[in-house]
Amino acid sequence: MTASAAAGHAASTPPTKSAFHAGDFLVERIARIGSATCVGLDPVVDRLPDALRPAQGHDPALDATHDVAHDAATCAAAIERFSLGVIDAVATHAAAVKIQAACYERYGPEGYAAMWRVLAAARASGLAVVLDFKRGDIGISAEHYAASARAAGAHWTTVSPYLGADGILPFLAEGHGAFALVRTSNPSGDALQVQPMADGQSLALRVARMVDELGRASVGASGYSTLGAVVGATKRDEIAALRAAMPHTIFLVPGYGAQGGTADDVRACFNRGERGSTGALITASRSVIYPKAAVGTSWDTAIRDAARVFADEIRAIAG
Amino acid sequence: MTASAAAGHAASTPPTKSAFHAGDFLVERIARIGSATCVGLDPVVDRLPDALRPAQGHDPALDATHDVAHDAATCAAAIERFSLGVIDAVATHAAAVKIQAACYERYGPEGYAAMWRVLAAARASGLAVVLDFKRGDIGISAEHYAASARAAGAHWTTVSPYLGADGILPFLAEGHGAFALVRTSNPSGDALQVQPMADGQSLALRVARMVDELGRASVGASGYSTLGAVVGATKRDEIAALRAAMPHTIFLVPGYGAQGGTADDVRACFNRGERGSTGALITASRSVIYPKAAVGTSWDTAIRDAARVFADEIRAIAG
Repeated sequence: MTASAAAGHAASTPPTKSAFHAGDFLVERIARIGSATCVGLDPVVDRLPDALRPAQGHDPALDATHDVAHDAATCAAAIERFSLGVIDAVATHAAAVKIQAACYERYGPEGYAAMWRVLAAARASGLAVVLDFKRGDIGISAEHYAASARAAGAHWTTVSPYLGADGILPFLAEGHGAFALVRTSNPSGDALQVQPMADGQSLALRVARMVDELGRASVGASGYSTLGAVVGATKRDEIAALRAAMPHTIFLVPGYGAQGGTADDVRACFNRGERGSTGALITASRSVIYPKAAVGTSWDTAIRDAARVFADEIRAIAG
Repeated sequence: MTASAAAGHAASTPPTKSAFHAGDFLVERIARIGSATCVGLDPVVDRLPDALRPAQGHDPALDATHDVAHDAATCAAAIERFSLGVIDAVATHAAAVKIQAACYERYGPEGYAAMWRVLAAARASGLAVVLDFKRGDIGISAEHYAASARAAGAHWTTVSPYLGADGILPFLAEGHGAFALVRTSNPSGDALQVQPMADGQSLALRVARMVDELGRASVGASGYSTLGAVVGATKRDEIAALRAAMPHTIFLVPGYGAQGGTADDVRACFNRGERGSTGALITASRSVIYPKAAVGTSWDTAIRDAARVFADEIRAIAG
């Protein structure tokens, strides 16, 4: 990034630093779009549309046989083209996009540079931008990660809670937001997250209380703080308790649909109030970015349609 | 990375994939060097030697006043030059180097590309290479991060434990190692890590038991697994219990010296056996890479001397 590029980023943020509030911004964006949906952008080369997939058909780096070699630059360029097309296709239907850093870092420096261009394009499109990089570090290292995410164009990041406040608060600098992992949708999350603490409550609920406490200082005009929580839709027995423990926390909710989360599960993630259903952002990745398309439909049109269908579904659920 | 660069990496790994074992490799490297020390490489522009620091004297990205602008490429180039000098200076005295990803990612794509070159240089120098990137993700995303770290040249990474096995095991692919955060040295780590579970034991001890279980399958000829644990030297009352809970786990130990960890604390991190003291890797960052130097001593000579002093101290402690 050159100094002028840095100035360009500054110009695209609100006029004064204190004016930006990631919670208020996201709530407003959801209201404007009319649906609390986030498209997860986690592209893998093997699943790209035929028109974009490198000719040799698979990614050798994920295949120990190494019989066909793509270089990283070719793969990075392919997922960048795809990502830019997805952003363009979903920008009018989705509130947010969640960019999975691992998919880009997989291709080294070329992939990382592609990710920055994708983040910039997402921001320019008007989408709320979540950089899903799940960092967990403290002090100056956390400040570095947070500053890097802001410079790249992210409004929100995802962070690990295990280090406590030291690993979370630096990501809230300059009004930016962070979603802390509270209750994840993966099977082995149970190994720690459902374990009972001495008071009989689960570790996830203890983390939820910490998130609620740390977020209180940044509750904005929308009623929501800049510290959010990742809460999997598949955890149906726990969602109500987590919602009650974190009333001012926006939930980032994976797991709807293919992973088993139902409409009722998703509904429980929202707060119901005078302004309708608020406080949750429902993510879908593969069902939107790799849709089943009718013959003759272009890949980007198919994605646009899938994003609209997803938005309609969540609108109907949230009521 | 080009295909030929990828081939170059492959050539520098052991002849067959199954032959590489990060635990055995690290234990052997420590024995060869004769001291279980790891130099933490977390460069910040403001603390670089005068000869390397960009002329305008501070990093605007970390300073809200923004009155003096360095661009990211200039900063990235400066920390890369410094990092390569540190690696050269410490390679004969340290067993390992721990590269803090945040310090490089701070400078965006230029910083990330610099980090890859630094990782490659560290690997070529014979040091055991720990990529301290503290990722915590699952499934294909975890596989992506792990593959990226291997391609860059890292033997070990650092990972968050909060997601359970799904967030840890992918980082052990191809014999590579991961240090899971178990008991960190930062103050707010206590918010979760010392909280008692229903059985009266701390969360950190519960995590330690999980790490021990997950690592059992990869215990090598050295008696150590490829799953390690980060255990802060400042947690003196807990180290013995953590050591007992994870007998086959290599500890990566920050916090010695400036942060308050004593010789006794460090000693407790080692296993004592027929082969002497094994199973811990003690890290130091600022005391080695920013040493107080006598007038007339070059910065790299001062770092070399500091690395030797650190190695001598740990050798004396481990006995």
